[in-house]
Amino acid sequence: MEGGAAASTPAALPYYVAFSQLLGLTLVAMTGAWLGLYRGGIAWESDLQFNAHPLCMVIGLIFLQGDALLVYRVFRNEAKRTTKVLHGLLHIFALVIALVGLVAVFDYHRKEGYADLYSLHSWCGILVFVLYFVQWLVGFSFFLFPGASFSLRSRYRPQHIFFGATIFLLSVGTALLGLKEALLFKLRDKYSAFEPEGVLANVLGLLLACFGGAVLYILTRADWKRPSQAEEQALSMDFKTLTEGDSPGSQ
Amino acid sequence: MEGGAAASTPAALPYYVAFSQLLGLTLVAMTGAWLGLYRGGIAWESDLQFNAHPLCMVIGLIFLQGDALLVYRVFRNEAKRTTKVLHGLLHIFALVIALVGLVAVFDYHRKEGYADLYSLHSWCGILVFVLYFVQWLVGFSFFLFPGASFSLRSRYRPQHIFFGATIFLLSVGTALLGLKEALLFKLRDKYSAFEPEGVLANVLGLLLACFGGAVLYILTRADWKRPSQAEEQALSMDFKTLTEGDSPGSQ
Repeated sequence: MEGGAAASTPAALPYYVAFSQLLGLTLVAMTGAWLGLYRGGIAWESDLQFNAHPLCMVIGLIFLQGDALLVYRVFRNEAKRTTKVLHGLLHIFALVIALVGLVAVFDYHRKEGYADLYSLHSWCGILVFVLYFVQWLVGFSFFLFPGASFSLRSRYRPQHIFFGATIFLLSVGTALLGLKEALLFKLRDKYSAFEPEGVLANVLGLLLACFGGAVLYILTRADWKRPSQAEEQALSMDFKTLTEGDSPGSQ
Repeated sequence: MEGGAAASTPAALPYYVAFSQLLGLTLVAMTGAWLGLYRGGIAWESDLQFNAHPLCMVIGLIFLQGDALLVYRVFRNEAKRTTKVLHGLLHIFALVIALVGLVAVFDYHRKEGYADLYSLHSWCGILVFVLYFVQWLVGFSFFLFPGASFSLRSRYRPQHIFFGATIFLLSVGTALLGLKEALLFKLRDKYSAFEPEGVLANVLGLLLACFGGAVLYILTRADWKRPSQAEEQALSMDFKTLTEGDSPGSQ
């Protein structure tokens, strides 16, 4: 239960991870189904360009971002450096896909002559994107760039984890706002007549919230945290005597 | 940093708590201002009955629920039992005020002949309310009712904390959805013309998200957790030898 150097995986963890992945893939598939069935599908060079926005955001800022957070739990017995690189790479993929989603909506607005950045969804979205980018840059400088000292890393680590989880949750909230906006703009009064599109999108919204909850649960469960590896423990002891900095503990 | 029986308060904690309270009170005041300035104020026996809904929910399920979570950090050196009772009481107040808010919207819908429970906001809202009620009942049975064993309590505690935080965050998300719904229903196309009401409500939405983030930060910061008191530590040692159950550790 207490970290340590045990290389075993907690018995229930794989089931929870599998459940989260099932939820995540269902989310992506349902977003695709919603856009295909009720919004005419996706194409870059037409009115359908808008539809690239929700799909990219669900793939990038929900599914991939969530999975990037889970890397330290799923590969808890792999070498720290490999896990770190995978964590950073997944976040880059997420960022690039989100950028495509961002370009899609701004480009669509420009072509149609719609105003930008007036809604709560757009304000939250820009906030998420900026925070995500800054978090990636700061995370890279501290954890992958070789310059940062050991004690600096261990002091920044809890902040990085808190802000990572918060940005992910804000992404889920922003997606819910966007979904709601898309429904009300199109369905208007038909929404209250339980139109099939409205019901499908409500279920999609609940699944989004469930995926957020599942990732948060796996991430925060104390006995599922990454055990500190033997090599790190030794390193930590060395540095402790040299620097009197905090031990970084388990990730 | 490590729990212990130290009765001191971390230096930065009061400032963070003060900031969260300032945010919370601003939220309540801004919700009142929004309803007063742009929605005609509040009255139970008229069309204005609807307006009781957002105000009650922001006071009950956002501000009071958030503060109930912070009780263990703010009164970290008080007797555990007193803190527990205050935690339970704040949650009851929140639940009763939320119930008034719930009655307001259902009563308003009935009088106006509107459909119930068709939107994502309403689905999330009912989910939050049911989870909140169940969490309160289970929490009461485990922690305030004298029957539950010590080891049962310590095994349930992490689940109670996780679900408490998750229900709070889902409440914030649901409030954002409700705010967005209220804006789109009334402003429609004027929302994109940066109407003052829309801008005010967007700022209110960002403050809601910030309050959620501030409460989560105070709640999750490891070195701000409640230290286990001397009496509990002694009790924990006694029980450990008797039951071989986990030590409950710090709350």
